[in-house]
Amino acid sequence: MALLVYKFGGTSVGSTERIRAVADKVKKAHDLGDQIVVVLSAMSGETNRLIALAKDMQEIPTEREMDVLISTGEQVTVALLTMALHALGCEAISYTGAQVKILTDSSFTKARIREIEDAKLRADLNDGKVVVVAGFQGIDELGNITTLGRGGSDTTAVAIAAALKADECHIYTDVDGVYTTDPRVEPKARRLDHITFEEMLEMASLGSKVLQIRSVEFAGKYNVALRVLSSFKEGCGTLITYEDTQMESALISGIAFNRDEAKLTITGVPDLPGVAFKILGPIADANIEVDMIVQNIADDATTDFTFTVHRNDYQRALGLLEQTCADLGARKVTGDDTIVKVSIVGVGMRSHAGIASTMFKTLAEEGINIRMIGTSEIKISVVVDEKYLELAVRALHAAFELDKIKA
Amino acid sequence: MALLVYKFGGTSVGSTERIRAVADKVKKAHDLGDQIVVVLSAMSGETNRLIALAKDMQEIPTEREMDVLISTGEQVTVALLTMALHALGCEAISYTGAQVKILTDSSFTKARIREIEDAKLRADLNDGKVVVVAGFQGIDELGNITTLGRGGSDTTAVAIAAALKADECHIYTDVDGVYTTDPRVEPKARRLDHITFEEMLEMASLGSKVLQIRSVEFAGKYNVALRVLSSFKEGCGTLITYEDTQMESALISGIAFNRDEAKLTITGVPDLPGVAFKILGPIADANIEVDMIVQNIADDATTDFTFTVHRNDYQRALGLLEQTCADLGARKVTGDDTIVKVSIVGVGMRSHAGIASTMFKTLAEEGINIRMIGTSEIKISVVVDEKYLELAVRALHAAFELDKIKA
Repeated sequence: MALLVYKFGGTSVGSTERIRAVADKVKKAHDLGDQIVVVLSAMSGETNRLIALAKDMQEIPTEREMDVLISTGEQVTVALLTMALHALGCEAISYTGAQVKILTDSSFTKARIREIEDAKLRADLNDGKVVVVAGFQGIDELGNITTLGRGGSDTTAVAIAAALKADECHIYTDVDGVYTTDPRVEPKARRLDHITFEEMLEMASLGSKVLQIRSVEFAGKYNVALRVLSSFKEGCGTLITYEDTQMESALISGIAFNRDEAKLTITGVPDLPGVAFKILGPIADANIEVDMIVQNIADDATTDFTFTVHRNDYQRALGLLEQTCADLGARKVTGDDTIVKVSIVGVGMRSHAGIASTMFKTLAEEGINIRMIGTSEIKISVVVDEKYLELAVRALHAAFELDKIKA
Repeated sequence: MALLVYKFGGTSVGSTERIRAVADKVKKAHDLGDQIVVVLSAMSGETNRLIALAKDMQEIPTEREMDVLISTGEQVTVALLTMALHALGCEAISYTGAQVKILTDSSFTKARIREIEDAKLRADLNDGKVVVVAGFQGIDELGNITTLGRGGSDTTAVAIAAALKADECHIYTDVDGVYTTDPRVEPKARRLDHITFEEMLEMASLGSKVLQIRSVEFAGKYNVALRVLSSFKEGCGTLITYEDTQMESALISGIAFNRDEAKLTITGVPDLPGVAFKILGPIADANIEVDMIVQNIADDATTDFTFTVHRNDYQRALGLLEQTCADLGARKVTGDDTIVKVSIVGVGMRSHAGIASTMFKTLAEEGINIRMIGTSEIKISVVVDEKYLELAVRALHAAFELDKIKA
């Protein structure tokens, strides 16, 4: 008998028909003897409907009231799923975040969970009930309703799994697992049975939007085994845990990419202490997030400085950088918003030399010019012209034999 | 400076535009220096939408989960109105029933209020805030969400007014007060400035559906001055309080009627002890509510027995009565579902003789045959053929000079 936390997103509970399908799935697992807590999001579209109502009331709606408003979305789905379970003869009970209670700080619309009271949940589970909890919401010390921000239902599920020391936390979504890369780019992409938290974090932040980064961090922190599965398709999904011996054999787990970046370069900057701050300070002040940063010495007295930003911020960043160029007496500013970032990710590269050289050799053989390189402990990223994206991903997928199942 | 509780029903908050209109009204009163608690229903149609979702899940939805579901309706409106007040620069804060907290028993879907914690409300009012409370809902001792049943928002408003010892409780609705009779039947019907709780109870139970009976009883019990006003029209409405000297001069306050009744008679019943129970027992067992009951001695040995039920229950009651007739060896059963009940209501009739004779004389002069008579301390009801309804109401309205304002 296992204790499992199931989380279903808005698409999975998007209609009464789909809610009934979720009830069927939960009932089957419950009948097998597992103890089950279900965490739900609002029906897809509902949160946006409520936000539109709010904006019709107040240009920038008060955040406390926004949380009172949008937390109703999950309250509706937990009641409906519990009714659907009752209709199947399955004992079940619903709870809002406040009822559980899921104690958070008071940062309305982006609260952080502080503590979860597990007494009620444990008692209900021991009574043989399925417990259905509203995701995304909690209550602060003063009794105000709070919400956790986008993707908060995943965080709720992981936090409850941690509090109950659940065996696994299943995140049901519209994909059937984590893939070696995006199957729309490389049809040979393969579903991974296992991936580590660290790899998942790198994959997620690089654009594989299967899971919210925060819930992965949270799962890693509390060592909750996460499993990503499809709501609509049978299968065992991808299990996300800490590195284990079995997984060490894989050098590279996957290839991530990001089409949303643009690159800016300032050249001939007088190489003095504090120059990086002078360049990036105005960018940060304008609330523009910077991803990769590379600095090269061009000659003895000057340096070249390159960084990437989101494409939406490209024009603004370019304007700021030209001002900085004039202020610093640098040579010139160039930029390019037709680039992509391609990254190979894997915990295996920690202990294996030669990964980088295989990557660079593969790209060179395809005639792909590398415009920028960045690395972390378990990731190597390159920036290339966007026209090479598919070619680069497929070549690297083949070079690291990601289409083959590892022993 | 007065402390006022305002209650707005579903029609008054049925769109974002109407919620803004409510905010304007509240802001104006608040600017004049009054302390204001606003109690809201769900947007019109929302509760029915949620009930339809529930019925799609489970034929007879679990009542606990039903309350979790439908209590979201008011949670949405309190958040939206609070935002609208903020947009006008008016300080305000929303509370759900659980947050207040409004403690109820655990009778889901028809809970009764036990206690209201007033500390938070008082603190906010003293801080100069408008307090916006979700009507219709509460929380039981175990932390389960409960609802008060249809019309429960009126009850919430009255209970909060009682807890805070408010000066008045204003019930905003789609009519501008309580009338001497239904203006659709008698265009000369006049809005009453005052009416007593007892009169209002008789008027409400006889089909003047301005206020829920329960909230009037509640207001009477805790001596909360109720005022019925229009959400959409200026005016001072009708104030409902205990009898005062000023009001004693009015003999009759209004004329109520009910088109939903049917009459059943069993004649030639052997007149033995317990016969009334034998006749009404099976009716009560079938959950059919009986309104008027009249018994006459026909001769020394037998009695005639007449009562009224809701027209929807007429056929069922008739079948049961025929069975009883056979069991008791009574003569026969007759019935009529084309009758109406017309009642005159007024605390003045307590101390004035001749009211009944004026009523019967008026009806006789119009050639209206009285089929049944029933009385209470402040009401006289007659049953007449339904074709005489309008004639009877207008004749009585004129006879008791209800179109004229009393000194």
